[in-house]
Amino acid sequence: MEFVDLITRKKLGQPLTDEEITLFAQAAADPTSADYQLSALLMAIRLNGMDARETAALTVAMAHTGHVLEPDVGGIPVDKHSTGGVGDTTTLVLVPLAAACGAKVVKMSGRGLGHTGGTIDKMEAIPGMRVELPEEEFLSIVRAVGCCVVSQSDQLAPADKRLYALRDVTSTVDSIPLIASSIMSKKIAAGAKGIVLDVKTGTGAIMHTLEECMQLAKMMVDIGDRAGRTVTALVTGMQEPLGSHVGNALEVKEAIDVLAGRTKGPLLEVSLLLGEQMLLAGRLAETREQARLKLTDALDTGKGLAKLAEMIQAQHGDPGVCQDVTLLPQAAVQLPVTADQTAYLHAMDAQAIGRAAQLLGAGRLTKEDVIDPAVGLVMHVRIGDKAQKGDAIATIHANDHDKARAAADMVRGALTWGNDPAPPARLLYARIQKDYTEVFS
Amino acid sequence: MEFVDLITRKKLGQPLTDEEITLFAQAAADPTSADYQLSALLMAIRLNGMDARETAALTVAMAHTGHVLEPDVGGIPVDKHSTGGVGDTTTLVLVPLAAACGAKVVKMSGRGLGHTGGTIDKMEAIPGMRVELPEEEFLSIVRAVGCCVVSQSDQLAPADKRLYALRDVTSTVDSIPLIASSIMSKKIAAGAKGIVLDVKTGTGAIMHTLEECMQLAKMMVDIGDRAGRTVTALVTGMQEPLGSHVGNALEVKEAIDVLAGRTKGPLLEVSLLLGEQMLLAGRLAETREQARLKLTDALDTGKGLAKLAEMIQAQHGDPGVCQDVTLLPQAAVQLPVTADQTAYLHAMDAQAIGRAAQLLGAGRLTKEDVIDPAVGLVMHVRIGDKAQKGDAIATIHANDHDKARAAADMVRGALTWGNDPAPPARLLYARIQKDYTEVFS
Repeated sequence: MEFVDLITRKKLGQPLTDEEITLFAQAAADPTSADYQLSALLMAIRLNGMDARETAALTVAMAHTGHVLEPDVGGIPVDKHSTGGVGDTTTLVLVPLAAACGAKVVKMSGRGLGHTGGTIDKMEAIPGMRVELPEEEFLSIVRAVGCCVVSQSDQLAPADKRLYALRDVTSTVDSIPLIASSIMSKKIAAGAKGIVLDVKTGTGAIMHTLEECMQLAKMMVDIGDRAGRTVTALVTGMQEPLGSHVGNALEVKEAIDVLAGRTKGPLLEVSLLLGEQMLLAGRLAETREQARLKLTDALDTGKGLAKLAEMIQAQHGDPGVCQDVTLLPQAAVQLPVTADQTAYLHAMDAQAIGRAAQLLGAGRLTKEDVIDPAVGLVMHVRIGDKAQKGDAIATIHANDHDKARAAADMVRGALTWGNDPAPPARLLYARIQKDYTEVFS
Repeated sequence: MEFVDLITRKKLGQPLTDEEITLFAQAAADPTSADYQLSALLMAIRLNGMDARETAALTVAMAHTGHVLEPDVGGIPVDKHSTGGVGDTTTLVLVPLAAACGAKVVKMSGRGLGHTGGTIDKMEAIPGMRVELPEEEFLSIVRAVGCCVVSQSDQLAPADKRLYALRDVTSTVDSIPLIASSIMSKKIAAGAKGIVLDVKTGTGAIMHTLEECMQLAKMMVDIGDRAGRTVTALVTGMQEPLGSHVGNALEVKEAIDVLAGRTKGPLLEVSLLLGEQMLLAGRLAETREQARLKLTDALDTGKGLAKLAEMIQAQHGDPGVCQDVTLLPQAAVQLPVTADQTAYLHAMDAQAIGRAAQLLGAGRLTKEDVIDPAVGLVMHVRIGDKAQKGDAIATIHANDHDKARAAADMVRGALTWGNDPAPPARLLYARIQKDYTEVFS
């Protein structure tokens, strides 16, 4: 079997056999294989698709091009993945809450690229924090503390690393089977038995339409099932930043505010929805109601915040930030953005808000960019809110006056106002498990 | 404009602008551009197509990535191209015939690959013949003799050279717009103003269905028109080898036999059909009938054969072969293939006949293979002929007994016999010019 024969079959719209899919994954992990053949096959897959069996086979084959962890952490290893959003720091809220309820969270995260933030960049805003740890140290922290969040190893699913880089430059990112297999190959390689997925839909999400999000979510649940993992996917809204804070240290501050009970709202609610599924996957609760009671108890008693401090300390960071958020990096300039009129906020371009934060230095345009942990912005209005003319609707946190003004303009441009009241943005669209789909309306 | 944006547009099924097409051709000719992006775009073109304007723009842009000849040869420069067949040596018949009638034939040819022969390999079977000549010498021979056949320069349409190599390994050869632009870019770069195309259909052709051949022919005529060239395409049959001889020296011998008047039949007939169009394109005749009269006169008076001898001499070859074909390389072994039964020949797998010749050493499997000019085979039956049991139906010319026997088996396996009479294979299927299509049935 030659690689060109695989390309021919997919070009003709035929499904590839498991053996052919394995050859594909192995070629992707083999540095001597030809990029031009891989990219021709990627385009054929983008245009002619892959079915559920092919996608699952590719996922498992990609996971096995590197080390597949079988973590012994004294419980069922669980993990969570978000397809990426703006002001979406659920990981820093739900991971310690779930661990405080007994979960064993083996969390490997990525860095941010484009308008969405990355958990690893946020973690590094905490003074002293180490996110690149040897595998044994990572697992021993999970055993001792119940959770650890580290940067995804380069050794994990090397085939995916190669294909991801090629997809970026060959316009083959927007393929649901390729997105699903890329995400799930890393989750499977990282060893979690229970996986909770947060698939974002809306103006700040990578996939814009609900239909595509549903397809992606179903495909990932199916892959997990075929690979012997328990997977639940929630489709959640990204019509506006999930929390009010966008930026690395600012999002850490907001997570601490939530865990300390000072902040309620959508960030907490989505964290609880995901946390419920994590406790169920870890067999720490039998029903969603039971799981929620455990989580809210961990929140109310401060055990969640204490668990975050414990994890930060284990990862060599300063746990004092949990008591005093001013220990986090602070930006030099705070520029308020005020309302031009008295009106209701009807819509927000969440991606533009993400780009405003990126412009300030909170995110990367290319992988080489260095980010500034202190900068970002805080939104004071959500969709449906009424603002009076002159009210502060956002505050820009910057280290450069020109950038602050440019970001303020971007924030203003991202907001759509109206004279009539408008409903708040929706949070939960669907809950998907094997043989089970619940759609909310 | 980034290259990845072109890929995106074609992926989404949008037509590319002329400017984008030019960027594509220039990237293909630029050795520092990325193979993986070119191959992703090739696959998107293979699956989503290109319209007539895009294909013509690509052709012209590819031609202009190298030197475009404007040959001053004392007349309208004309050229002929075949999509490739088995036992198809029309070039060596019609080029001297047309030159004997006053045509100025600037013919650049390729080498054979796979089951089809290449004119350049056949020319090199003539002792002393030189097929790689400096451009000035090439054109001065055309001026003096009226024709010259040389190997296509590497400088001609370098973008096509790169894309052709990539298509071969990415399963994107079978795209009509890519085939059409590849052929026509080289014809346009070589400077012919009148171009005659022979698009083969049938078991020995690269394109099997008549419908695809018609599409390809129409597209090439359209490209030529948009590029200011006069193009006529004939769609001709390749249900069996066109001549009876298959192999390099053997096909030169057959061309000489035809020009000497010793052999009639389909090879002569197709040569005359193509030759008519060449004289019309060169404005050396006003009607097909007039053109045919001139060609048959050149044949009957021996002027065509004399012109071949003149061209061979100008290209440093031994013109004596035109009088004494035994001066051509001869194979050591002649193995007759006899009929197992008395029956009518109903069908032939012409590609299998081509592969039998290739096995003997007459063709290449890879570009690095060295060919043996002497070997090949001669068919003694055509579709529709009746053979008596024991009749010689073919003769294998080999330099190796084992290969001779294997080739004999392949020839036997390529023939389908029946008890009922069968009609001969068709020769001419269609004649296509700008705004004019004549289909024969």
